[in-house]
Amino acid sequence: MDLKSKIRVIEDFPIQGISFKDITTLMKDKVAFKASVDMIINNLKEKDIDHIVGPEARGFLFGAAAAYGLGVGFIPIRKPGKLPSETSIIEYDLEYGTNSLEIHKDAIEKGDKIAIVDDLLATGGTMIAAADLIERLGGEVVAMEFLIELESLKGRERLEKYYINSLVKYYK
Amino acid sequence: MDLKSKIRVIEDFPIQGISFKDITTLMKDKVAFKASVDMIINNLKEKDIDHIVGPEARGFLFGAAAAYGLGVGFIPIRKPGKLPSETSIIEYDLEYGTNSLEIHKDAIEKGDKIAIVDDLLATGGTMIAAADLIERLGGEVVAMEFLIELESLKGRERLEKYYINSLVKYYK
Repeated sequence: MDLKSKIRVIEDFPIQGISFKDITTLMKDKVAFKASVDMIINNLKEKDIDHIVGPEARGFLFGAAAAYGLGVGFIPIRKPGKLPSETSIIEYDLEYGTNSLEIHKDAIEKGDKIAIVDDLLATGGTMIAAADLIERLGGEVVAMEFLIELESLKGRERLEKYYINSLVKYYK
Repeated sequence: MDLKSKIRVIEDFPIQGISFKDITTLMKDKVAFKASVDMIINNLKEKDIDHIVGPEARGFLFGAAAAYGLGVGFIPIRKPGKLPSETSIIEYDLEYGTNSLEIHKDAIEKGDKIAIVDDLLATGGTMIAAADLIERLGGEVVAMEFLIELESLKGRERLEKYYINSLVKYYK
């Protein structure tokens, strides 16, 4: 299935020079959405994972759907102030701007096998932060799954110690 | 399955007097998460829906998983400035504070049958706003599905013209 044809590209959003990949058109298409999630599940099913972790907000979309289909639990990584129990927090640089993310300290147990799922791999900054949060708690990041990869931003190089798949590739 | 026992209740979060229902403990539990999504799907499968709509951010979790399981498309309703194409916007009152939400104008076609899925029914303010956005675009809201309902806040009364299900009920 040609997933790329289902993604809408919008230039100069949210700021000048960014070629924004709008996944809402893909998710609205029931065949493309199901095919995407099935491909993520297929990449993960031999990995014997305990949980999928997804960063707020777009990581919730494919992450929760894949967790349901795979029959594993879902753990959110959220923006500060959203998680009600004790958290671990990390601040990091984005493709444009900075961000902080939190995880519940009791969400992961030592030795848990975790897959991180997100919509987009750009510079890899969010993924390095997410993996750091998971590893601090004793979790093992056994896979990172993305709908889209922006190859010119070289996130994959920064994440070379991880097993990575992306379903649709763009140069930038 | 006793879903309520999987939800963690945290008092006085995010502000004094709120008894916050923490769904992260349920979602981390693979059996409880799958059972919850299956129950939502079961409530919707006779409704012949075209799309599930979920409001950012927690509505993405059960909404996207249920859309995947049901084999329909998912449409996000987001906070202002997140959706890249032309939107319709609404401002409304929350249980605590105010909020604005946007939907892509081309997300819904006239006559589309829509189910809204969210984690929590409180006062119903978010749901009235979400239904308004959908109905402006010509969509028909044929169901609203919630993981949790806070009965004392009487959201169900404000939404009496809609078909509503919730999986776990609390007084407040």
